[in-house]
Amino acid sequence: MGLFTKDIQTLDDLFVHTLQDIYYAEQQITKALPKMISKATDPALKSGFEQHLKETEGQIERLEKVFEMHGAKAKAVNCPAIDGIIKEANEIAGDVADKEVLDAALLASAQAVEHYEITRYGTLVAWAKQLGREDCASVLQQNLDEEYATDKKLTAMAESKVNRHAAA
Amino acid sequence: MGLFTKDIQTLDDLFVHTLQDIYYAEQQITKALPKMISKATDPALKSGFEQHLKETEGQIERLEKVFEMHGAKAKAVNCPAIDGIIKEANEIAGDVADKEVLDAALLASAQAVEHYEITRYGTLVAWAKQLGREDCASVLQQNLDEEYATDKKLTAMAESKVNRHAAA
Repeated sequence: MGLFTKDIQTLDDLFVHTLQDIYYAEQQITKALPKMISKATDPALKSGFEQHLKETEGQIERLEKVFEMHGAKAKAVNCPAIDGIIKEANEIAGDVADKEVLDAALLASAQAVEHYEITRYGTLVAWAKQLGREDCASVLQQNLDEEYATDKKLTAMAESKVNRHAAA
Repeated sequence: MGLFTKDIQTLDDLFVHTLQDIYYAEQQITKALPKMISKATDPALKSGFEQHLKETEGQIERLEKVFEMHGAKAKAVNCPAIDGIIKEANEIAGDVADKEVLDAALLASAQAVEHYEITRYGTLVAWAKQLGREDCASVLQQNLDEEYATDKKLTAMAESKVNRHAAA
């Protein structure tokens, strides 16, 4: 987007821009997850991150499909939001000494990432429907459903053991 | 937090650090909201932002209460996540030409902010309970409930008219 021009004229432009934003975000997440996998100690948390990495790769393919369905080129634009969320995740992880407390911190950071994706996919689904693109909405809904499921799984993992171990 | 020291040793330390993070985030939100209010055109969206600004001030007071209950000094630490989310909100707003499309963009940005708060308060409530601080958890839960309610209100506003007007 230009610094001195207002490139977004229509809701359709805004939809494509936000698609480019989440396309970038998902790519950054695939780069961040291997570090989180290597730092996690709890085997279930580690394998949860591994599973989410595979899932994220599938989500990127779905986004490419939506770009294609929409007749737009798959392109990423900078997304300061995900950059900030990942930067914060790295900073906190670097500050934690205890392995079990680190697991609790990593899990919380992963949930912050999930919530960013949930809000963006929720918006994209609503805009696609408003634009009469039920076909795009339905593909994006699959990503949204996966993010919700991952967030729920992380909450269950936190409550069932990760937080308890961190407090012990 | 130090660059070369690992300052977070316990879940309690992590709880206080995250409290400082959201304390900073809420302060940044009170600075960002007036700009969003001045840019919004839809009267309901504008007044929704105004109401959320007042609510945010109350949430900051609740955070100060939690710091006090916990015997910690109310202090803010840098939160790259909220800085990134707000930076992105400003960039997108600056790129949108049409007023009604801008409303849709502002609403989506506000939801990204809400989701960041939801994830952090959700985590803080869970950690407070794990630490046996039901008293702190109950105050933080009030902030979490307000953020959920605001997000729900924004979704309803988007679906009932803001997105429709933006697409017209």
